[in-house]
Amino acid sequence: MNQTPQPLRSVVEQARIDATIIEIFQDLVSFNRVLGLEILSVRAGDVRARFAMRPELVGHYAHGRLHGGVISAVLDSMAGVALLAAVAERHPRDGPAELALRFTRMGTVDLRVDFLRQGKGEHFTATAEVTRLGGRIGSAQMRLHDASGTLIATGAASYVVA
Amino acid sequence: MNQTPQPLRSVVEQARIDATIIEIFQDLVSFNRVLGLEILSVRAGDVRARFAMRPELVGHYAHGRLHGGVISAVLDSMAGVALLAAVAERHPRDGPAELALRFTRMGTVDLRVDFLRQGKGEHFTATAEVTRLGGRIGSAQMRLHDASGTLIATGAASYVVA
Amino acid sequence: MNQTPQPLRSVVEQARIDATIIEIFQDLVSFNRVLGLEILSVRAGDVRARFAMRPELVGHYAHGRLHGGVISAVLDSMAGVALLAAVAERHPRDGPAELALRFTRMGTVDLRVDFLRQGKGEHFTATAEVTRLGGRIGSAQMRLHDASGTLIATGAASYVVA
Amino acid sequence: MNQTPQPLRSVVEQARIDATIIEIFQDLVSFNRVLGLEILSVRAGDVRARFAMRPELVGHYAHGRLHGGVISAVLDSMAGVALLAAVAERHPRDGPAELALRFTRMGTVDLRVDFLRQGKGEHFTATAEVTRLGGRIGSAQMRLHDASGTLIATGAASYVVA
Repeated sequence: MNQTPQPLRSVVEQARIDATIIEIFQDLVSFNRVLGLEILSVRAGDVRARFAMRPELVGHYAHGRLHGGVISAVLDSMAGVALLAAVAERHPRDGPAELALRFTRMGTVDLRVDFLRQGKGEHFTATAEVTRLGGRIGSAQMRLHDASGTLIATGAASYVVA
Repeated sequence: MNQTPQPLRSVVEQARIDATIIEIFQDLVSFNRVLGLEILSVRAGDVRARFAMRPELVGHYAHGRLHGGVISAVLDSMAGVALLAAVAERHPRDGPAELALRFTRMGTVDLRVDFLRQGKGEHFTATAEVTRLGGRIGSAQMRLHDASGTLIATGAASYVVA
Repeated sequence: MNQTPQPLRSVVEQARIDATIIEIFQDLVSFNRVLGLEILSVRAGDVRARFAMRPELVGHYAHGRLHGGVISAVLDSMAGVALLAAVAERHPRDGPAELALRFTRMGTVDLRVDFLRQGKGEHFTATAEVTRLGGRIGSAQMRLHDASGTLIATGAASYVVA
Repeated sequence: MNQTPQPLRSVVEQARIDATIIEIFQDLVSFNRVLGLEILSVRAGDVRARFAMRPELVGHYAHGRLHGGVISAVLDSMAGVALLAAVAERHPRDGPAELALRFTRMGTVDLRVDFLRQGKGEHFTATAEVTRLGGRIGSAQMRLHDASGTLIATGAASYVVA
């Protein structure tokens, strides 16, 4: 992102915006509650979340590993978190309500996920990086690591943004 | 698929194989139970499943539409169903146990999903078509329609096969 | 495409629009001249082109097969042809100049290509189908067949449209 | 890559292997000569190439920017370079002939490209990183920058490897 940040928000206002982003993805998106996604950071350059392994997230019953759909869902959500955070940065006068409205106009256009290694272990960490924020389209790259730091999956997503 | 089928299985044996494929994806893959995926047909050229909308499958709380991760998970599974059915056709002497073993050696390499329209309505139908079944790699194209027959999403997946 | 067509153009006007689409992709896009892409039809439901094998389009020198980049370039262009034709259908009062202007505002957002079989033989046929034409985003699915009718590659693309 | 390197090659042998990889992609793959791809480094962690803008590589005639097909072709090739270099590292006893033979058994399974910004300027730099090297499948992530260091495109590819 070459975009110059416009840090017009006070620390308190930014904290409110961050809390709004987390609330949207962690609490209001029902399916993310199924996944148990816990968002740890929404700062540009450090968008990060984690979730714990649970029996209902298993795919291959023979291996006890994460279902590919769980990985896809998490990486899709992470792209959304990173892009909403970038949208918030681009509109520094937006309050929580305006940002929530922008979110309702966002949506995933398409998603690619590469499943590199088996998703095993007690918990997983997902990160996302915005590679483009245009007026109509946003793009992000996502990564999922297991508890030992091994790269489990990578992803790329295109979103419509507002 | 240009491959010549080898219909060495009796009708009864084929029914057992079909039941095995359905059991693997519908019952043994835990996450597919979360999705409520019901497989309707595993015959080549007509691989088809359905699932009902439920509150926990919602993504955009503001719209009440399917979470993208649910769509990704369903399309990923459908590619697996179609490819396992094609693998079963290629190995006509395999019984249920041999086929289940082959399944444990299969896995999604990567997945693309295009989210075309909002996933709304009471239930959804997913289909998959095998576009290549090689010795090491299988490919499939997937589609998701809503109850009115509108195309909601398309997908493409590469799998390792055994 | 559920969109209702608005056939306000006369046969002559439509022929001029078709010729404009062909000219843009076949003659004005320099790289398509390198590929030797010949567009055969730009009608909705039958967007089709062909190109001949030539020594400079070879990838794997050991196999004498089409370079993957050639396949990607052709399928990307075919998505553009299909989407520009759909845009022309949506704006039935546009003449060639207006349509050419719309084309300058279009662009590929992202592309997926599945390389299914070796691209061998004297010529190849490419087709494309529009799966969504929204106000900001268009999506297409593409296919490449060899001279014997074998499916060589499939593709999916997202475009910004205007 | 968690794989432990086995540096059994002498500096001279490694230089011969590097030269083989460069020769394969730069000279023997005909289409890469069309692109004018010049490979600068094939060392793990620093796989890098460049190419100059030329009139026949232009897509959008109205903008004078790189054709998407050129970007796809370059990123596809870069994934191949990175994976062949990783294969060479995994088989330290292979000489140039054995490595060339392995290359003939490699092939792109599928490719995704995200076109982030217009490809303008006099030359471009492409890089690739191996994210998985399995026994049957290799995965890579690719990036294209323009002369000013701006990120133009990203890519992901799956390959069969031998």
